[in-house]
Amino acid sequence: MIKVDLNCDLGESFGAYKMGMDDKVIPMISSCNIACGYHASDPMVMQKTVAMAKEAGIGIGAHPGYPDLMGFGRRNMNVSPKEAAAYVTYQLGALYAFAKAAGVKLQHVKPHGALYNMAGKDYKLALEIAEAVQDFDSSLILMGLAGSESVIAAQDIGLPVAREVFADRAYMPDGSLVPRSREGAVIHDEELAISRVIRMVKEHRVTAIDGRDIEIVPDSICVHGDNEKALVFVTRIREALAAEGIEIAPLSEVVRGAHH
Amino acid sequence: MIKVDLNCDLGESFGAYKMGMDDKVIPMISSCNIACGYHASDPMVMQKTVAMAKEAGIGIGAHPGYPDLMGFGRRNMNVSPKEAAAYVTYQLGALYAFAKAAGVKLQHVKPHGALYNMAGKDYKLALEIAEAVQDFDSSLILMGLAGSESVIAAQDIGLPVAREVFADRAYMPDGSLVPRSREGAVIHDEELAISRVIRMVKEHRVTAIDGRDIEIVPDSICVHGDNEKALVFVTRIREALAAEGIEIAPLSEVVRGAHH
Amino acid sequence: MIKVDLNCDLGESFGAYKMGMDDKVIPMISSCNIACGYHASDPMVMQKTVAMAKEAGIGIGAHPGYPDLMGFGRRNMNVSPKEAAAYVTYQLGALYAFAKAAGVKLQHVKPHGALYNMAGKDYKLALEIAEAVQDFDSSLILMGLAGSESVIAAQDIGLPVAREVFADRAYMPDGSLVPRSREGAVIHDEELAISRVIRMVKEHRVTAIDGRDIEIVPDSICVHGDNEKALVFVTRIREALAAEGIEIAPLSEVVRGAHH
Amino acid sequence: MIKVDLNCDLGESFGAYKMGMDDKVIPMISSCNIACGYHASDPMVMQKTVAMAKEAGIGIGAHPGYPDLMGFGRRNMNVSPKEAAAYVTYQLGALYAFAKAAGVKLQHVKPHGALYNMAGKDYKLALEIAEAVQDFDSSLILMGLAGSESVIAAQDIGLPVAREVFADRAYMPDGSLVPRSREGAVIHDEELAISRVIRMVKEHRVTAIDGRDIEIVPDSICVHGDNEKALVFVTRIREALAAEGIEIAPLSEVVRGAHH
Repeated sequence: MIKVDLNCDLGESFGAYKMGMDDKVIPMISSCNIACGYHASDPMVMQKTVAMAKEAGIGIGAHPGYPDLMGFGRRNMNVSPKEAAAYVTYQLGALYAFAKAAGVKLQHVKPHGALYNMAGKDYKLALEIAEAVQDFDSSLILMGLAGSESVIAAQDIGLPVAREVFADRAYMPDGSLVPRSREGAVIHDEELAISRVIRMVKEHRVTAIDGRDIEIVPDSICVHGDNEKALVFVTRIREALAAEGIEIAPLSEVVRGAHH
Repeated sequence: MIKVDLNCDLGESFGAYKMGMDDKVIPMISSCNIACGYHASDPMVMQKTVAMAKEAGIGIGAHPGYPDLMGFGRRNMNVSPKEAAAYVTYQLGALYAFAKAAGVKLQHVKPHGALYNMAGKDYKLALEIAEAVQDFDSSLILMGLAGSESVIAAQDIGLPVAREVFADRAYMPDGSLVPRSREGAVIHDEELAISRVIRMVKEHRVTAIDGRDIEIVPDSICVHGDNEKALVFVTRIREALAAEGIEIAPLSEVVRGAHH
Repeated sequence: MIKVDLNCDLGESFGAYKMGMDDKVIPMISSCNIACGYHASDPMVMQKTVAMAKEAGIGIGAHPGYPDLMGFGRRNMNVSPKEAAAYVTYQLGALYAFAKAAGVKLQHVKPHGALYNMAGKDYKLALEIAEAVQDFDSSLILMGLAGSESVIAAQDIGLPVAREVFADRAYMPDGSLVPRSREGAVIHDEELAISRVIRMVKEHRVTAIDGRDIEIVPDSICVHGDNEKALVFVTRIREALAAEGIEIAPLSEVVRGAHH
Repeated sequence: MIKVDLNCDLGESFGAYKMGMDDKVIPMISSCNIACGYHASDPMVMQKTVAMAKEAGIGIGAHPGYPDLMGFGRRNMNVSPKEAAAYVTYQLGALYAFAKAAGVKLQHVKPHGALYNMAGKDYKLALEIAEAVQDFDSSLILMGLAGSESVIAAQDIGLPVAREVFADRAYMPDGSLVPRSREGAVIHDEELAISRVIRMVKEHRVTAIDGRDIEIVPDSICVHGDNEKALVFVTRIREALAAEGIEIAPLSEVVRGAHH
């Protein structure tokens, strides 16, 4: 049976600030990426989110970002690869502590926002991050954009890796995402988005923005849970996957070489 | 042979800001408390300090503080015990990650500054912190002021505990430190300070500020390494301990119930 | 004609985090307190909120707090009065810059959360804050809890002062607020709350929690705009004030000695 | 008589962290750039530094940077021009408040580190910053790298501008600084550095790294005061300027169109 993971960013609230509908989206996903205090979240939020994810039995991942709370980690920062890797180690350890105290294992690491995007295009940065994850725990899965430098770097050092795809984004012929600034970057037609996802999972193909088919192998589909519309869309993806006989399962059951 | 630990705060630099003479004091101590990014330090500093401590073979402890970089964690904050405990978990995990990546074990946790002082006088706060440490790793040693609520709380839950003493501070009849605001709080006579330390270690006695002798059992002596004068004083303490046949050893060799 | 000000905290969003229903509450108030980046807000939010307040023609005040974003400035911090005053100067200047650039005057300063509460009970802290405001601009109005040390300190140095009252809070016989931890601290009966406000404004009297009447002189009534229920309550207060022939006006028209 | 300004970054200490030898360099300079809390400094440091600068009678400038304390504002951040401009307004206002309270005027604004470098090469960013300064106070001088986009943007909108030069840096044929990563970027020969400065001031010429002479008009020379060697170098520059009959004067006396 074909399996695929559904992942969502969780635990993005901070102090008095609430963000996301974590309790609503958790029942619909198989893995979550929990913010670690640099671009979002705080220790109380991390503790609570780990408890919720444990209760739901979904895979737990660290979601480290740049130290830019004001910019939610979405702004590129000219941080050296070694510094970025140390930021990942710091945040990964912080989340690990809450998981350890709660008696659950960490499943994966997914860099957030600008760190995710920059590592996806910069092999040296991707390699330092992958090595930082491996140095901490070589059985952790690194999640990166399918086809990106992050995936290549993790594979190069033998770190388990999860290839992530996006239902609502158009792809360039080289497998990278069409930049949001370009027309057609976001796919607003939900039917189309869902049929693309199904095809990616079943056929490992997607039609790039130039009309040509490219290969793409999805271990995990990124979904959002921060508004009602997003939640409805996740429900539709789940229904479509079920209708095709595709099982939704945590990364640890999807990724080859991952610990169970 | 009587053993006692010498501990010092390390890794307090932050970004472009340098603090402390870590390389000079490391050869003179047996355990270090490494700041974890809330009141001081950053991931690069933590990584480097762990490497230096590993190289020197000294015991490594986490030194978590309040989230108050501007006040260096020295200002009391009215944070709930549960929040404070979550802050400890977060910082402890962050330092653990650098230790794990470097292949060394964490030995202990010593709250910093205002968190240390507040927990020393507030059993509920002390208990939450001790439980947070235990939930993460029940073999870690919690370091607290000898005779304080921190020590009592750790003992109550069966967490290994290290009783810390201060060479240059006067004691109240109840074993607490004389507040710095009171005359006589700091002992400026180095000879006297050293003879007090020796007596604490050998006889478990110290003369309180009212002239009466009180019991005090030191597992670790707090020393400083942030200026030349402090370094000279540490040298003198080391010489005096050696002359008395007292061995300087990491906490893990001093504290009953600690893992080796 | 009797005049009273209605004030509300605004501009508490931060980066990607949204808080409050500023656009909804602005038409209902006469003065606003804009967060200044220490406990909430950021430069973009401050700039936008100043523009909205200017457009609506309401009085603009700085709302400085402790440097505690994670705690939203609600946690007491043991900051020295001189430091607290410097924090006020810093934040006041920051907001002033946006007001100056927008071509509007600042009307007042209202310390936020823990800083407001601590200054209300600590004359020395209140005095340092009042002097900091006066040193920056002696025509600014300092808003403080009616009857508190903040009001007394401002009056002592001749700084214009606004006495703030709360519709939904019970009062101690000495005019301080009943702590939230005590039963009866919050008045849930809206009718009662409104009738108390009207009596405060018209008769300068309120019934304290022990049943005795005390004197209270309100220049401004604190209202909230962070949820629908709060907005409805503000509407009801406005209607009740109107029915009594009381005019809602910015602090600058209410406070004696304020510049117009 | 030819006049030139000597400027130095001051007030870079933060909380318990000390940086720079402000008291030593102040007597040797005519203008200072005071950090404003985003990349360095805090309210107490700003207050004290303004007082020291006032006492010495030197020109006071705001030195706003990116919100990156951990990176000391030296790391490029992909912040939008409008956000960057709002950051400048915020920090400028904060420093203004301390100057206002101390009874001194602000003379200029000099963006710091990565913000200075990025604005120097990005007209749109430079323009937003210049407009933010002008919107706050159109008589303030904006200091930028001689020949850079910052200078051009300020001139374009009629904001007084100061062209800054560096004694110890090599120049590209287009007037930009040779990147530090390139060989020959830093001029280590002090004699040569000083003779280049003198020539810049007197002849408005400097030899670029390709051997050709280019035009450069210096209103201010950047000097450093963070170590003994730097202080000695400033002394030598002062002596050389004096020997050539060049007067060291604050920017407000050097820049055409500046208020006095």
